[in-house]
Amino acid sequence: MNNLFRISICALAVLFHTACAAATTEPVNTPRNVIFMLGDGMGHAHIKAYRMYADDTSTHIIEPLPVDSLLVGSVATDSIIMNCDEQNLNCERDPHGVTDSASSATAYATGHDTITGRLSVDTEGAPMKTILEEARQEGKSTGLVATSQIVHASPAAFASHVMSRRQQNDIADQYFDTQWQGAPMVNVMLGGGLQYMQREDRDLVSEFKQAGYQVATDREGMLAMQGERLLGLFAPVGMPKSWDRAPTVPSLAEMTQTALKSLSQNEQGFFLMVEGSQIDWAAHGNSIPGVISEMEDFMATVTVALEFAKKSQDTLVIVLSDHETGGLATASDGVYAWNRAPLQGMKATPSGMIERMLAGDKKLSAIVAENIAFELSQEEIEALDAAGREEREAFAAVAEVFNQRTGTGWTSGGHTGIDVPLYAFGPGSNHFHGVMQNEDVGRVMREVFLPKK
Amino acid sequence: MNNLFRISICALAVLFHTACAAATTEPVNTPRNVIFMLGDGMGHAHIKAYRMYADDTSTHIIEPLPVDSLLVGSVATDSIIMNCDEQNLNCERDPHGVTDSASSATAYATGHDTITGRLSVDTEGAPMKTILEEARQEGKSTGLVATSQIVHASPAAFASHVMSRRQQNDIADQYFDTQWQGAPMVNVMLGGGLQYMQREDRDLVSEFKQAGYQVATDREGMLAMQGERLLGLFAPVGMPKSWDRAPTVPSLAEMTQTALKSLSQNEQGFFLMVEGSQIDWAAHGNSIPGVISEMEDFMATVTVALEFAKKSQDTLVIVLSDHETGGLATASDGVYAWNRAPLQGMKATPSGMIERMLAGDKKLSAIVAENIAFELSQEEIEALDAAGREEREAFAAVAEVFNQRTGTGWTSGGHTGIDVPLYAFGPGSNHFHGVMQNEDVGRVMREVFLPKK
Repeated sequence: MNNLFRISICALAVLFHTACAAATTEPVNTPRNVIFMLGDGMGHAHIKAYRMYADDTSTHIIEPLPVDSLLVGSVATDSIIMNCDEQNLNCERDPHGVTDSASSATAYATGHDTITGRLSVDTEGAPMKTILEEARQEGKSTGLVATSQIVHASPAAFASHVMSRRQQNDIADQYFDTQWQGAPMVNVMLGGGLQYMQREDRDLVSEFKQAGYQVATDREGMLAMQGERLLGLFAPVGMPKSWDRAPTVPSLAEMTQTALKSLSQNEQGFFLMVEGSQIDWAAHGNSIPGVISEMEDFMATVTVALEFAKKSQDTLVIVLSDHETGGLATASDGVYAWNRAPLQGMKATPSGMIERMLAGDKKLSAIVAENIAFELSQEEIEALDAAGREEREAFAAVAEVFNQRTGTGWTSGGHTGIDVPLYAFGPGSNHFHGVMQNEDVGRVMREVFLPKK
Repeated sequence: MNNLFRISICALAVLFHTACAAATTEPVNTPRNVIFMLGDGMGHAHIKAYRMYADDTSTHIIEPLPVDSLLVGSVATDSIIMNCDEQNLNCERDPHGVTDSASSATAYATGHDTITGRLSVDTEGAPMKTILEEARQEGKSTGLVATSQIVHASPAAFASHVMSRRQQNDIADQYFDTQWQGAPMVNVMLGGGLQYMQREDRDLVSEFKQAGYQVATDREGMLAMQGERLLGLFAPVGMPKSWDRAPTVPSLAEMTQTALKSLSQNEQGFFLMVEGSQIDWAAHGNSIPGVISEMEDFMATVTVALEFAKKSQDTLVIVLSDHETGGLATASDGVYAWNRAPLQGMKATPSGMIERMLAGDKKLSAIVAENIAFELSQEEIEALDAAGREEREAFAAVAEVFNQRTGTGWTSGGHTGIDVPLYAFGPGSNHFHGVMQNEDVGRVMREVFLPKK
């Protein structure tokens, strides 16, 4: 019955002599596929900063991002915040606390709020079925793609059930042990996290191979993979940031393309979760180059997903975030401007620069100078070299150069409670609008994608 | 022909066995009236802070604000930022500057970008017709309501044309001198700004009276006013903030009710611009109590407008902002919480407290203590009294108490470039969606409200 009842709202509008709404020729039936895309930590300000960075200033407009026309509302990311004892059992509710990635991703995966730090278990600790699991049990294929370790909180909420997001080995085990019809629940997994999969106590990579998965650990290997069972692990923990990647490491867009090619072989459809994981990590470090590097990676991936969805016509694409990170603002200290120029032509993010510093004996200022397209001031050189070689301090010194030069402001090294943007495209997208609580987004996504028969 | 072609998208959806969209029974024809509501400086974070402040924690949900279900997108508030010479003539364009209220309100009023600081004149200095003027010339009534002086940038963009927003006396003159069919262009003006209207060189209040306007300078006088020509001036410059108001001063909601009662007497409809002006002012001072005071005032007013629109069924209500102010975030310094408790039960905003300090000889800490519902710490008392009696410094000391206690973060005492929320309700609201540039909002609003015949 798919695609049978496509109606054009515009055609009706013409018929009734009325205005034509935004939703023009989109099919309004149940989507066969869902691509759920999460920019971790991505708030309205991160979007704005990237739009200004990507703008073509030779035109008289500010070029819209691929998502801009798809903005349908915001997500309130509030979850159940508890101040709990050490066993995470006796808890007191704080109605105004700020969420973490685990509880917010759980809300999306299950349609239910839970306590921060938990993954798809409820306040009593009982597992809650996820949309990915339900999709698989209905015969659809499933995938997880992330630039973090694949066992990190956001992807893990869709395919594991643990009391704490820190149980990353347990999450890895569950990825293999939770099976459906004799095979692991997730068909395609691409990201970082080799060290959690290949451990002294258990070699899950071998187990996945034996279960029929093709395995890749670099870009070339990934691009050569065929079939419907794929495991790609491209870093021990998190993958390098986009601007720091060697040619042997695939981009998020390439991983997503690989996943889509594989998953779309299933005629019954698929559920794919894609995360731009490190927008959040960069924002925790108040690093604007890192945010832009990861926003660029994520937006290129959104473009891939939208192209797929436009072609397939039966794919719902949801793009959103789990919470805002950093209290980012594109202006600070009373100055009415945000200057992208220092970010242009960069060859590495601050994380990449620090890694290079730690790997050799060059001065920090020399490494920074090699990776930027402007000249450091004497003051900046002195500040960088005074920061020393301690990772945290050196990183902060590099980030500060860009905060000062761009006029970027931050209120926190943690998350904030600000509502995050909500974008939707494709069949079922009309069900997403206004300010939605994160658990309602999860609930509605499931109702739209897997309607009760 | 009004309201003739109402169709129910849901009815059609049922007919076609498809899902039912958000827009259910709303009329899709041209609205007779527009209420354009601007929360000056109101970003997504200001909305979030107020939602958390207003939440009823005895329930298991976070109560939505009246606007939440009406969120349809965001506005990119970029305008033409020029670095100009003293005559504001030889300018160099900065594509990534941050807007001010004058240029953003001009974009809404005229559908065109202009240089910051200018009011409804283009980059060459030529006047651009506003939606308010065009509405009046089509026989509709018009109104401006604000808590700032009524000649302040945002309302002024709708009914004056000057090279600089600072020309507040010229703006006042234009309010009287720009006439249509023998009477001033704006039927109803309610706000602050008596000193710009009643000056040594010109007494516009008398002129308005002679032209048939009823004039009020306090709440009682305003509530007694009848007729279609009203001038209410309730303060020499800006009105006191909501939490600082004496019973003789009307609220923004009461002013709006008065305007609606008057304007709706015209069967041809009306254009009303309403501004919650001082959300911005409070945010410039990084004062979270001031922001909440003014958000409360503005949201109560939105409720009034929505009630009117729901009853009338032919009124388009647009709620938005001109830019974000402050780089506000509901969390700071790595703490995952935002605590509204210190804001509850306050009897004055920091501005009100400073005014009381300057009017007497009480210590600042004593005045703060009288106006809050918690006990100041010894450290806070000392910091307040050490700030001295200089207005700016004393204000900052008071604001800091609340920033610390609530966990509120700010990146700036000025504006930022972050996109602001866009809400729409009523006939024509379907034309507002996604990320829109502020001039496109103005253009579309005019096309929807005053279609070319």
